[in-house]
Amino acid sequence: MRNVRVRLSYDGSRFHGWQRQEGFHSVQGAVEEAIESLTGTRVAVHGSGRTDSGVHALGQVASFHLDSALPDDVLLRALNAHLEEGVAVRDLETCDDAFHAQKSARGKRYAYLVLEQPVRPPFGERHAHWVRGPLDLAAMRRGARALLGEHDFTSFASAGSPRRSNVRRVSSLKLLARRGRLAFVIQGNGFLYNMVRAVVGTLLEVGRHKWEPEAVARILAARDRSLAGPTAPAAGLYLLRVLYADRVFVPGEGGRWRA
Amino acid sequence: MRNVRVRLSYDGSRFHGWQRQEGFHSVQGAVEEAIESLTGTRVAVHGSGRTDSGVHALGQVASFHLDSALPDDVLLRALNAHLEEGVAVRDLETCDDAFHAQKSARGKRYAYLVLEQPVRPPFGERHAHWVRGPLDLAAMRRGARALLGEHDFTSFASAGSPRRSNVRRVSSLKLLARRGRLAFVIQGNGFLYNMVRAVVGTLLEVGRHKWEPEAVARILAARDRSLAGPTAPAAGLYLLRVLYADRVFVPGEGGRWRA
Repeated sequence: MRNVRVRLSYDGSRFHGWQRQEGFHSVQGAVEEAIESLTGTRVAVHGSGRTDSGVHALGQVASFHLDSALPDDVLLRALNAHLEEGVAVRDLETCDDAFHAQKSARGKRYAYLVLEQPVRPPFGERHAHWVRGPLDLAAMRRGARALLGEHDFTSFASAGSPRRSNVRRVSSLKLLARRGRLAFVIQGNGFLYNMVRAVVGTLLEVGRHKWEPEAVARILAARDRSLAGPTAPAAGLYLLRVLYADRVFVPGEGGRWRA
Repeated sequence: MRNVRVRLSYDGSRFHGWQRQEGFHSVQGAVEEAIESLTGTRVAVHGSGRTDSGVHALGQVASFHLDSALPDDVLLRALNAHLEEGVAVRDLETCDDAFHAQKSARGKRYAYLVLEQPVRPPFGERHAHWVRGPLDLAAMRRGARALLGEHDFTSFASAGSPRRSNVRRVSSLKLLARRGRLAFVIQGNGFLYNMVRAVVGTLLEVGRHKWEPEAVARILAARDRSLAGPTAPAAGLYLLRVLYADRVFVPGEGGRWRA
């Protein structure tokens, strides 16, 4: 038995989220089925974390134990040949037995895409969040600063399973903008349920001048979800990268891959 | 009655082509229905030309006669509010009675998008043509040169309705490439049925070193469709722009629009 880790991209609009659930079409289920159809064995694939229905990934990481003698590059191509449309293995490597996609993760990076234009976009409504605008970028950037660092993010967490602590560290939060396409890129040591989407929903209210940039710090300090903005739609959210203590995925064939 | 012209974008994967056909879901039909639901009157919308099922547009032009007193900008927003997902009016203006989207057209510009990467892309399989590669860009560019200028393009035309002449003038044919994304951008005074897709299918064979760049000139001279490459899939093709003798669509709200 060897421990294998993969980096996956998927189009979240084609799946009912990452996690396998009876009667639903999940990314985890699709990967497990591809492995089974290739090897004849059902294995459990462990992701770095769940992504909700409609949320996309360019760099989800998952690991599983496999009894196969296929070299990594052959296994990568064979898995992709068995995977359905909408999900692909970008990288694959045999790794340390101790590696576990979720337990070994040290952080994550997400991007949230917004299309700012007066007319509803005929392309990409399942792959970005459309707002009519105009949005005040400078105000959103000022508001975002309050979120940097270690805080209790209760105000930005949807109700979910209880957790020991709502304290997380946001190490980077940038807003890139070019010709009506905006990307919020946020990195941290972990994210609460719907936290990125609540952060974006709140900053968009600042961008629309519904709230002052200074309101973000007050919302954060209040630890009250009802004070923050709405949860932005799943369609705009992309899991870009999962961070580990050690370097993962040495450049190989997968290194030439792009979304 | 006023003559109105619109510039439309649409996601071709959602429609069975431009042209209205009984029992099929067409872009033309969708626009006519939006006008009817807005004004209560059924009008005929004339496009600059047909696009096939699966072919996209960022700048299709259409015109129609309408009995309405709504100002152009109000009409644009109202039409978009009535249009279904996947198609949008970018620009709208009342124009000369003599203007006809098809008869007044002097040329067109298309883009054909190719994703060159070893792994099947989880995003965009309906919006680009995926090839594993590698492709020799320099060879494709050399091959493309033979197509510039005025030629009989019979070798690159699928069988269709009979036409007076297969002579067309290609004024520009460029291959842009960046990080595995290729765009063939081609402009001419008119295109035969499936001509852009046959040109791309042929140049891709050159890019794969199946044929030398010099083969393109020989294929063109032979006036024999069976000698050229396959018709590249519809998913990669975008109608970018329709060219008219006069300038159309003065910058307005639509000028801020992006796909």
